[in-house]
Amino acid sequence: MNKFLATARGEIPAELVIKNARIANVFSREYELADVAVYQNKIAGVGQNYDGVEIFDAQGAVLIPGMIDGHIHIEDTFMIPPAFADTVAQMGTSAVMADPHEISNALGIAGLEYMFKSGLNLPIDIFWGAPSCVPASEFETPFEELDMLSIKNMFDKNLCQHLGEVMNFPAVINGDPDVWGKITAAGNVPLTGHAPNVTGKNLNAYLSSGISSDHECNDLNEAREKLSRGMWIMIREGASFPNLKILLPLIFENELNAARCMVVSDDITARYLLETGHMDAKMRIMIEAGLNPFTALRMVTLSPAEYFRLYDRGGIAPGRLADFALLDSDEMNASFKIKHVWKNGRKVIKNSNLFTNVLNEIPDLASDIKITRIPTEEQIKIKSSGDFINVIGVTEGTVLTKMLTLKINRDKNGYIAPDLENDIAKIVVLERHRNTGNFSVGFVKGLGIKKGAVGSSVAHDAHNFVVAGADDKSIITALNKLAEMGGGLVVTEGENLISSFPLQIGGLMRFASPEKISSDLILLENCAADIGIKIKHPFMVLSFLCLSVIPELRITDKGYIDISRGGLQNLTAR
Amino acid sequence: MNKFLATARGEIPAELVIKNARIANVFSREYELADVAVYQNKIAGVGQNYDGVEIFDAQGAVLIPGMIDGHIHIEDTFMIPPAFADTVAQMGTSAVMADPHEISNALGIAGLEYMFKSGLNLPIDIFWGAPSCVPASEFETPFEELDMLSIKNMFDKNLCQHLGEVMNFPAVINGDPDVWGKITAAGNVPLTGHAPNVTGKNLNAYLSSGISSDHECNDLNEAREKLSRGMWIMIREGASFPNLKILLPLIFENELNAARCMVVSDDITARYLLETGHMDAKMRIMIEAGLNPFTALRMVTLSPAEYFRLYDRGGIAPGRLADFALLDSDEMNASFKIKHVWKNGRKVIKNSNLFTNVLNEIPDLASDIKITRIPTEEQIKIKSSGDFINVIGVTEGTVLTKMLTLKINRDKNGYIAPDLENDIAKIVVLERHRNTGNFSVGFVKGLGIKKGAVGSSVAHDAHNFVVAGADDKSIITALNKLAEMGGGLVVTEGENLISSFPLQIGGLMRFASPEKISSDLILLENCAADIGIKIKHPFMVLSFLCLSVIPELRITDKGYIDISRGGLQNLTAR
Repeated sequence: MNKFLATARGEIPAELVIKNARIANVFSREYELADVAVYQNKIAGVGQNYDGVEIFDAQGAVLIPGMIDGHIHIEDTFMIPPAFADTVAQMGTSAVMADPHEISNALGIAGLEYMFKSGLNLPIDIFWGAPSCVPASEFETPFEELDMLSIKNMFDKNLCQHLGEVMNFPAVINGDPDVWGKITAAGNVPLTGHAPNVTGKNLNAYLSSGISSDHECNDLNEAREKLSRGMWIMIREGASFPNLKILLPLIFENELNAARCMVVSDDITARYLLETGHMDAKMRIMIEAGLNPFTALRMVTLSPAEYFRLYDRGGIAPGRLADFALLDSDEMNASFKIKHVWKNGRKVIKNSNLFTNVLNEIPDLASDIKITRIPTEEQIKIKSSGDFINVIGVTEGTVLTKMLTLKINRDKNGYIAPDLENDIAKIVVLERHRNTGNFSVGFVKGLGIKKGAVGSSVAHDAHNFVVAGADDKSIITALNKLAEMGGGLVVTEGENLISSFPLQIGGLMRFASPEKISSDLILLENCAADIGIKIKHPFMVLSFLCLSVIPELRITDKGYIDISRGGLQNLTAR
Repeated sequence: MNKFLATARGEIPAELVIKNARIANVFSREYELADVAVYQNKIAGVGQNYDGVEIFDAQGAVLIPGMIDGHIHIEDTFMIPPAFADTVAQMGTSAVMADPHEISNALGIAGLEYMFKSGLNLPIDIFWGAPSCVPASEFETPFEELDMLSIKNMFDKNLCQHLGEVMNFPAVINGDPDVWGKITAAGNVPLTGHAPNVTGKNLNAYLSSGISSDHECNDLNEAREKLSRGMWIMIREGASFPNLKILLPLIFENELNAARCMVVSDDITARYLLETGHMDAKMRIMIEAGLNPFTALRMVTLSPAEYFRLYDRGGIAPGRLADFALLDSDEMNASFKIKHVWKNGRKVIKNSNLFTNVLNEIPDLASDIKITRIPTEEQIKIKSSGDFINVIGVTEGTVLTKMLTLKINRDKNGYIAPDLENDIAKIVVLERHRNTGNFSVGFVKGLGIKKGAVGSSVAHDAHNFVVAGADDKSIITALNKLAEMGGGLVVTEGENLISSFPLQIGGLMRFASPEKISSDLILLENCAADIGIKIKHPFMVLSFLCLSVIPELRITDKGYIDISRGGLQNLTAR
């Protein structure tokens, strides 16, 4: 006798039956009062009068399918995968599509292998995207480059399920053989995109690659155009870059668009997770905004499942994985919480052991590189005979920056100086993977820095050291502290280290519980606020100032970059 | 220089540009006034101001994506694949998902190979489903059985793209190892279903197999349930069994359902194609019924493309195949016609050579079997001491039959006789693949036969000879004529052949143009009408009386079958 079929037919008791739940049926878009019968890791039946060895009484609460995050960089939570999984599993997440390109930039193949290994046997399924752009562009310097053979290797070994965001859109558009080689090596898997502000004929060229999604739509028209060209739209609701409010009208215009849209995190922190939530939070935001809860649910369950070709999940239905979560409420509303979670038919319970086990070994390469070639205060001073400089313009809430051309402020010695009254700080990037000593200097407006400096080894995507500060001494102190720590986040003032936050694994992650990470981060962010930085998630904002593949002006160890203006830009301007 | 990308970017003239078209954008659900630039077989760009080596002026007419039929048995058009392709390509069809289980039943592997070969290099793409149920059930006798190794072989050789309709639903539900072996052999491809009246716990069990679609919903509630259990609904609009009117409310209820529904043909004839059309006809029917034309369009383009994982088509968008059709109208309305068609960027023109070329060779096995063991009139006479018999009840417009229990009518010699006043004819099925002489006798109500007989070698799915008639002589004449012809359709009266329609290839298809097939069929159907059969598509209705996997009563060479009652049924009843 096939027990699965016998369970489905109701001839033997199911191993587990959830009774008295209001099933949120993402297919029929209505609540359904029925039993859910489970055999091993799968749903055997949905219907009336299933008997079970174990019965769970849902007492009229809503049961939703396990939620799926279609795009996230786990590293950016500062948590290792087991800690991340333990955290989001409690929030009803059952799967994430993770692009490990942060660790790839910082630790190369060894870092990737660490992620793949530590991502196994967790209370969520982590599906990895092969990092397609390491480095993100020719204007960044990573630990090592991932070439097309590395990509092919990952797929040959079944380590990856999709191609990670293809960020180097100019290379795609212009037919660069390296990037096209990686796309080709990925073969017939979902090819995920990253194409901020790419529209018109450039978008056509980008899409000729077969890339089929994007999470970088900055306004409604951009999203409309991309949708109309056949792309799936990932609406990013990240910690620093929340796009739901901007892009939800796409769904209000026509709910059928929900069949080609999903909501993703991209970049969130441990603090954000604990305070706001994961996919459950995105649900609440959408419902609060007035979206039909079933439409909202589709965009965090069925739609990502379909885009990523995960036909075994996405809804509570027979034959699919027994991944579901029970709310504390009898409806999906703007304030529901996740009360109970099942993954593969097993109840999910908090398990801190997950991140204190053997997998917590630091990858071999992590401690090999000691950064000793650090510039002096003198070396980061710059003179110019002109009147203007280019400045990175930061606007809270968007990942886009501006390239501002502003009048030079000079110190008493004639050097170009921060202009704190006008919120212009100095920013320095130092290469940290090969100890080359390469560094670059620029200026940034909009962080709010009034004194001291903030520094980070999380600096997308190459993750060199980035420091922004009010004076050269604070900046150099920050660089030295980052080098001493082997990576992390710091706040400095003059010669003093005000606060630090070590990130032992590649300068990106640490071995700690989300609570510890979050509380330490709050302390650190308070120190950042003390020196004037009032924007939310200041270190995340800082880290993105180096990402060369998002317009407009960025800074890497190679200097100023504006991808929309073709690459390298001068510090001085006319 | 990559010419495709340069075309997309608008830097070199496209090979072909369609100008002044109103593009029916299935993603944005609106008409878009833009150029479509083509490079080789693909769309390089959609947008303004594309220059082209060749310019086609659409003069304001609507351009729609190539349409996709998600489920059809080409054999049932009586046309060989090249003739079928030539016909439907003119109607804007660019791809069909074909289940060649008819030829598999009639000619086995050799027949399949003929289909695969003759399906190449045509103006449409034919994606084959591996026939999962040959025979359809244990109650039918085909030429040869296709076992799980045959299925595995077809996928190993990349001959098939999906698993053909899994009709033997009792075997799936009950865990039959043969059927489950075939499902397993198919692996990670779309597994298409056939589950008429399967609901509740049986449906749960059926779905545990991973089968994900169904085209046999007979009413709205059945469709709603299947949709809610995660299935894709194929709304069948066949020649004899048109379901659109019954099932369209599913889409009216919520247009989001169109993202998991498509419209398919299943069984249509050459005559139907010429008189009514193919997917274009389904579009007209849906629009006439009041559906938003873009929703209708989705269900014959994007939705089937997504279900069948054909990510290179389904809409007019960059990077997708240059498959599109120009209407004679500036809107998609209930009377549009297809005026021009492009497939892979080339203009499709009628090409009768397609079906007079080398591929028209009859498969080797076709003429090997001579049917000599044909029953006599005496042998098909039946006596019974009871008062009642079971009778197949036919209702026009539905593929379902009834199992009727009716009072016996006896002739002067005491044999059970047709009751023409009450529209009850005799029906005989004779095994024709192995010349075993096996036959069975039953009765059918609802065909309208007043005299003579109709016979067919198209008799789903085993395609034995089936004859229904008013008297034994006409029936035996029909069987003899079918045997002489080596397959086809006949109308007889007494000893006389009134009309015949040869089907040289496996008794299923013939080498002829659709016009010839259609006009000959009209002649034949007129003769059938002369003996009383007024229902539409009488030979298609007759052919389905043998299909053991659709409830209720059917007849095969093994006798009466009712799958919903577990199989074999008696002729006589209480």
